[in-house]
Amino acid sequence: MLLGKVVGTLVSTRKDEKLEGVKLLVLQRLNVDGEPHDGYAIAVDVVGAGVEEVVMYTSGSPARQTTVTDRRPCDAVVMGIVDTWEVGGQVKYQKR
Amino acid sequence: MLLGKVVGTLVSTRKDEKLEGVKLLVLQRLNVDGEPHDGYAIAVDVVGAGVEEVVMYTSGSPARQTTVTDRRPCDAVVMGIVDTWEVGGQVKYQKR
Amino acid sequence: MLLGKVVGTLVSTRKDEKLEGVKLLVLQRLNVDGEPHDGYAIAVDVVGAGVEEVVMYTSGSPARQTTVTDRRPCDAVVMGIVDTWEVGGQVKYQKR
Amino acid sequence: MLLGKVVGTLVSTRKDEKLEGVKLLVLQRLNVDGEPHDGYAIAVDVVGAGVEEVVMYTSGSPARQTTVTDRRPCDAVVMGIVDTWEVGGQVKYQKR
Amino acid sequence: MLLGKVVGTLVSTRKDEKLEGVKLLVLQRLNVDGEPHDGYAIAVDVVGAGVEEVVMYTSGSPARQTTVTDRRPCDAVVMGIVDTWEVGGQVKYQKR
Repeated sequence: MLLGKVVGTLVSTRKDEKLEGVKLLVLQRLNVDGEPHDGYAIAVDVVGAGVEEVVMYTSGSPARQTTVTDRRPCDAVVMGIVDTWEVGGQVKYQKR
Repeated sequence: MLLGKVVGTLVSTRKDEKLEGVKLLVLQRLNVDGEPHDGYAIAVDVVGAGVEEVVMYTSGSPARQTTVTDRRPCDAVVMGIVDTWEVGGQVKYQKR
Repeated sequence: MLLGKVVGTLVSTRKDEKLEGVKLLVLQRLNVDGEPHDGYAIAVDVVGAGVEEVVMYTSGSPARQTTVTDRRPCDAVVMGIVDTWEVGGQVKYQKR
Repeated sequence: MLLGKVVGTLVSTRKDEKLEGVKLLVLQRLNVDGEPHDGYAIAVDVVGAGVEEVVMYTSGSPARQTTVTDRRPCDAVVMGIVDTWEVGGQVKYQKR
Repeated sequence: MLLGKVVGTLVSTRKDEKLEGVKLLVLQRLNVDGEPHDGYAIAVDVVGAGVEEVVMYTSGSPARQTTVTDRRPCDAVVMGIVDTWEVGGQVKYQKR
C-alpha cells in the first residue's frame, strides 16, 4: 500500500461507461516521513476521503479488489484513511 | 489513472488478431501541473479522443477492463477525456 | 520476492471493508547486502512478523495469493521471515 | 504498448515446459522519436518479426492475452509490426 | 523475460503455507551485454538452476504461470537456463 495526501479532484464526463459514478481524487504521494515524494496519482475514492486527508492507496490490479472498483478500468484506489503510523518507535504521522 | 495528451497515432497492419480494429494513440504523459513529463505511451482509444485532447489513461492489467479491450493484449487504454482537475484549490487544467 | 525489515506499523480504522482485520506493517526495503535501499512499503502481515525482523515480501497481484489476502485490495504482503541468505558463498544475513 | 526494434534472439533449451516452442527475441526499446531508450527486453514473438523490424510489444499480464502466450509464464510479447507513427503531425517512423 | 545470474540462495522456514517446498534463488540481474545491472531478485526455481548459471526469469503475475508456482504468492520465477543470446549478429553470451 502507498501513502498519499488528497490534494484535489478530477472531472471527466466523457469516459468509459464502466467508470460512471466514481469519484476521482488527485493524490500527492508521501514517503514514510509523511513528506511529498515521487509525484501524484489519480485514484478512485471508496472511503469518502476529503481534501487534506492522508490515505492508503494501491495501484495496479489490486485496485480492482474493492466492491466499488470490481471489473472497472481503475488502476488506483484509495481504500483507507490513515490514523497513524510509526517507524522505529517514533510516530511519523498522527491524524488530528 | 495517468494523465496524458494525445499527440499522434500509430499504425500496425501486421499484428496479433486480437488487436484487429483498435485505434492506437500516441500519448505524451503529463504531470499534475499539466506539463509534459516522463515520456510517452501507446494506448488503445475507447472514448474517441482526438489529437490535442487531454485524457486519463491506465496501464497494465486494468487496461483490459473496458468492453473494447477485454481479453486483448492491450497494456494501455485511454478511458476518459478530462474536463478539469484542480490541486490545492487551484485549477490546473480546464478543457476549452 | 523482495527483502525488507519490519520498522513499524500503520493504523487505519476507516477503510474498505475487505481490509478489515489485517495487520499493516511498515517495511524498510533492503538490498542484497542487507542494507536499507529504495524506500519503504506498507504490507499486510500473514506470518506474524515482529519489529526488527527481516522478511520476504511481494507486491502487485502476487500479494493476493495468500489465504489471508485472497480477493482483498492488498498490493503488498509479508509472506516469510528470512533465516539466512548468501551471495557468492558469503552469508549476507543470518537471523540471530 | 511499447516500441522496440528487434536486435537479436535468445536460445534456452532447458526451460519450463510451458515455454516449449516459443521464439524469443531481444528487443532494443525505442522512444517516441524512434531512438534507442531505456534498455532491452526479451519477448516472445507471435507475429513473425525479423531482425531490424520495429515492433509494438507489451509487458506484464497483458503479454499473456495472445493465443500463443495464453497461460504461459511469459512477461513480454511482440504483438505487432509497426508501419508508421506520427507525433504532432510529423512522421517519426515509417517502415521501408 | 529478464536475464540474471544465480548468485546465491535464501532460506525462510517460517513462511506462508503456499510457499512450502519451493527453492529460492538470489539472482544478480544482467543487462543485454551480460553484465551485472540494476540490482537483484529473489526468485523461485522451477528448472533446477545452479549457482553461476545464467537464466531467464520473470516477475509479477507471469511468475505464477508455471506448474510449480500456480496460485502461490510468488512474484519472480526462474523458468529457463540460457544457452546463448546474440545482439546485432554478435554473440553476447554463450553457455560453456
